[in-house]
Amino acid sequence: MTGARELRDDAQAFEEQARRILQRASELDLMIATAESCTGGLLASLFTDIEGHSGCFERGFVTYSEAAKCELLGVEPIVLRRHGAVSETVALAMAEGALAHSHAGLVAAITGFAGASGEDDEAGLVHIAVLRRDHPPHTRECHFGARERAEVRHLALAATLDMLEDVLAEE
Amino acid sequence: MTGARELRDDAQAFEEQARRILQRASELDLMIATAESCTGGLLASLFTDIEGHSGCFERGFVTYSEAAKCELLGVEPIVLRRHGAVSETVALAMAEGALAHSHAGLVAAITGFAGASGEDDEAGLVHIAVLRRDHPPHTRECHFGARERAEVRHLALAATLDMLEDVLAEE
Repeated sequence: MTGARELRDDAQAFEEQARRILQRASELDLMIATAESCTGGLLASLFTDIEGHSGCFERGFVTYSEAAKCELLGVEPIVLRRHGAVSETVALAMAEGALAHSHAGLVAAITGFAGASGEDDEAGLVHIAVLRRDHPPHTRECHFGARERAEVRHLALAATLDMLEDVLAEE
Repeated sequence: MTGARELRDDAQAFEEQARRILQRASELDLMIATAESCTGGLLASLFTDIEGHSGCFERGFVTYSEAAKCELLGVEPIVLRRHGAVSETVALAMAEGALAHSHAGLVAAITGFAGASGEDDEAGLVHIAVLRRDHPPHTRECHFGARERAEVRHLALAATLDMLEDVLAEE
C-alpha cells in the first residue's frame, strides 16, 4: 500500500506536470479533452485542479459503461465486441470520439482493467491513446500487472501525462 | 494547507461513504451518473475507485466549459446567461441533463467557483443538485468562502456525498 508521504509527493509531481501540459497547450492554442474508463475522471480532476490554467481544459467524458462509450464517444458496439473494451482499437476510437465531440485539439483516452475483472481479462492491462489534431496518433499498451486498483489508475495517469508531454513537444 | 495525514483520513472516509452509496444504489437497482464543473471529475473518480461496486456507476460528464454544459447536458445558453453558470437553476439543469443523457436513475450535479474567478463571483460559492428518478429534487447552496481551490472542491465533494446518502435514505 502506498503511504501518505508518497501519495503527496506524487500528487505534487502530477500537478507540476499537468501545469506544464496546460501551459504548453495554451501557448499552442489547444484546448484539452479527456475520455476515461478505468481512471474514471482522475485525469480530468487533475487538470481542473490547476489554478489559473484550468480554462484550457474543455470537457471530460467518463465513459465507464459500454453504453457510455458508444453513446457519448460514438464507439461502435461491434468494435467493442470484436476487440474488447480494453484494446488499442477502442482507446483510439474513444480518443477520436472525444476529438469529434468536443472543441478540443488535444485529447487523451484511457481504458484498462484496474481491478478484479473477468476470467479472461489481464489484470493491469491499460491502453492509452493521445490524439492531437493534424498529428499522427500516439498509443501505448501498458502491462502493470495484478496490483491494487488505485495503483493501476495511478500508473495509467502517469503514463498518459508523459504521452501528452511528448505529443506537445512535437513540431 | 491540509496535511498528508488529514488528506489520507479524508480519502478513507470518502471511500467508505462512496461504498455505502454504491451499495445502497445497487440494492435499489439504481445506476449513478455525475455532472461536474468545479469538481472536474473528482466525484466520478471516487465512485470508480471502489472495488467490486464501481459497476453501479454508469457515466460522468465533466462539463467544465459552458459549451460542454450546453452540448452534453442540454443546458440552455439563455439559462447560463440569465442565472450564471454557478446557480441553483444551472445545477438543476445539469442534473436533469445527466438524467436525460444517461441510463442512471440517480445523478449529482456540482457547479461552483473553486478558485480565483471574475470580479463579481463569490469565491467558494457552490451549487449542488441531486436527482433521483420519480423523487423530488434536492438542491444545496454552499458558501465555503475564499479558500484554496482544492479545499473548496473537497468540501463540495463531501456535501454531495451527504446529499446522495440522504436521497438514498428516502422511501
